[in-house]
Parts: sequence; structure tokens; C-alpha cells
Amino acid sequence: MKIFLATNNKGKIKEIKEILSDLNIEILTPRDLKIKFICKEDGDSFYENAYKKAITGLLQTGYITISEDSGLMIDYLKGAPGVKSARFTKKKNNKENIKKVLSLLKGIKKEQRKAKFKCVIALALSFKKVKFFEGECEGYISEKEMGNKGFGYDPIFIPKGYKKTFALLGEEKNKISHRAKALFQLKNFLQTFLK
Amino acid sequence: MKIFLATNNKGKIKEIKEILSDLNIEILTPRDLKIKFICKEDGDSFYENAYKKAITGLLQTGYITISEDSGLMIDYLKGAPGVKSARFTKKKNNKENIKKVLSLLKGIKKEQRKAKFKCVIALALSFKKVKFFEGECEGYISEKEMGNKGFGYDPIFIPKGYKKTFALLGEEKNKISHRAKALFQLKNFLQTFLK
Repeated sequence: MKIFLATNNKGKIKEIKEILSDLNIEILTPRDLKIKFICKEDGDSFYENAYKKAITGLLQTGYITISEDSGLMIDYLKGAPGVKSARFTKKKNNKENIKKVLSLLKGIKKEQRKAKFKCVIALALSFKKVKFFEGECEGYISEKEMGNKGFGYDPIFIPKGYKKTFALLGEEKNKISHRAKALFQLKNFLQTFLK
Repeated sequence: MKIFLATNNKGKIKEIKEILSDLNIEILTPRDLKIKFICKEDGDSFYENAYKKAITGLLQTGYITISEDSGLMIDYLKGAPGVKSARFTKKKNNKENIKKVLSLLKGIKKEQRKAKFKCVIALALSFKKVKFFEGECEGYISEKEMGNKGFGYDPIFIPKGYKKTFALLGEEKNKISHRAKALFQLKNFLQTFLK
């Protein structure tokens, strides 16, 4: 079975392909189909954005479509950057976003640096059948950037029970992350669905 | 503006109409349109069911559609009845469902009777634009039924900080409940949308 993955984000494509690698499905990216996937991510929630991307992908390609929306919610910032994680700064790049978070949390003690990553995956089987899978990962924001694996806010997020950032954990991130948790549920569903 | 409310549940219709009463919208129920709203609620999550009902309503009536899915998650029962709250027993009626919960929690102390109600509202503006609003209300399960207002599991749910069940609280439920919280967000959105 062929499934379209409605994202241009290389980091997400890598993680999603890795976790779903042992399923009997062929994952097609916009690049594989030689198309440009464009969808304005202006929703007020992860669910809304994930839904929008999945339906747009289904419309654009005709394939069953997987999409993902995720973000970092920092307690001290009342849940920001949240659904605006990718566009927390005007430049919309990881370096600038990280710089902004670290600057907003400057001088704040560890106990007050609590944060969580949230991920929502939408699977559009048809216009009438869309499934959702959700995953969360709690942790806190480090005082400086550490590591160069992963993407996004990975260099400053230390998951609960660990001492390393996601960007230092590398492969291990894919066992415990918010995205991994949502993907394991998607995987379970697809395993049954493929039978 | 006319909005279709995709539910046959009288309790939900009453609560939703009450909270949205001061908006400049006309809420149409299946009864108002002289149709029967039928949608199999077999999803694995509140989001999936809410989505399904909203899109079905939009398809069936052509009106912007509001739907709702909600349920009770009991810690001791590992989150059950959850998405299956309305169909926790074969008879699918409130009395039987409540009896089953009380019997499963028989002899269990208050500290272990923690539970929460969750509500997801979907607003289908079009097939490409669906918005979601979520609300939760924490509390615990009482040892016996109390009160006759509300509906569903209301007679055995005591919200955090209160000593009365939802079914005893009556009007006050509509200020603090999971559904009220989701509806307030929907209301905020509609207020801006109507301008």
C-alpha cells in the first residue's frame, strides 16, 4: 500500500520513515511525487493543523495521507510557543527560535523550566474517515544548546528522567519522544488495517 | 447565521444551546430540520468521533456543523469507559452504565476514585476547514448516585473542589464542566468569526 506523507520537513520524514520501516507500506513524500506540498499552517491547535494537512494531502495526491503537527509547550511561557513553535520568530528558523526561548527563560531555575512536546498525527483514509493519534513527552528546557542530532527545539529539550537533550540522545529519542508515541499508535492501527 | 448541531442527545442540545444563547446564530437540531441524524460512533478517540459527526452533518445538511464527543475516564479503570462511555454496557443506557461503574469501583477508596470528563467539539466550516475545541474536568466518582439534573454519568461524578455531583449542581455545571470549557472556546471563536 502507498501512503502519502504530507510534510516537507526532512527531520520529520526521517523519524516517521524509521518507525514505520517494518510495515508493508510505501511512504511517498512530496519529493517522491515531484510535487510541492503547500498548506498554510495557521490553525489554533495541533489537531486543526494536522487535519488540514492530511485532507490537503489526500486532495492533492489521492493517496491515503499521514500528516503531523507538533510543538513545544513551556509552562513558564504559559504554553508558548505551542502551535506556533515553527514560527516563534519572524525568521521561522530553528536557531532563532531556540535563541528566543533561551532568552525568555534567562535566569529561570530548573524547577520553572518545565515543558512538554506534543504531537498529533492525522491519518486521512477518506474525507469521511480521519483518525488521530496523540503523543506527549514531558521534560524541561536546558540552559544552553546541546547536541546536533534531531531538529527543531531538540538541542534545548531534556526529557524527564534523562540528563541529555533530544539532540544528544539521537536514536534513543525515537523510543520516547512525543512523535514516537503517536507513531507507535499509528503503527498499531496500520498493522490491523493492512490485514 | 444558521448552524447545524449534529446530535440527537437532548442533554447535550440543552447545554450547548444555553451556553451559545447570546450569540447571533440560529442553532438547528436534527428535529428542527425534520431529519434523523445517524452516524456510527465507532472511533478510537473523541477527536475521531467528533470529526466524523461534524463532517457527516455538513454533508447531510450543507450547514456549518457543530458536533461533540465526550466521555468519562476513570483512573482505576485505566481510562475506561473513555470513548466508549455511552456504550459501556450492552443496553447502552445511563442507568446500566452507572451501575456498572459503581460495581467495578465497589469498596475502592476515594483517593483511588479519580476520574475526568473530557469533551471535544468539532466545528466543520467546510471540508477543508475543521476546528477543534477541547475541555476537561477533573474529579472523582461518588459511592452512590446523587441528583437528577444533567445526564449520562452526572449522578456519580463529583468535580474537584466540590462536594456535589454534576447531577446535583445543575446550572453551576455549565460554568465548570468539560463541555462548558470546550464551548467557551467555540463561543470565542464564533464571536470573532461572525464579525
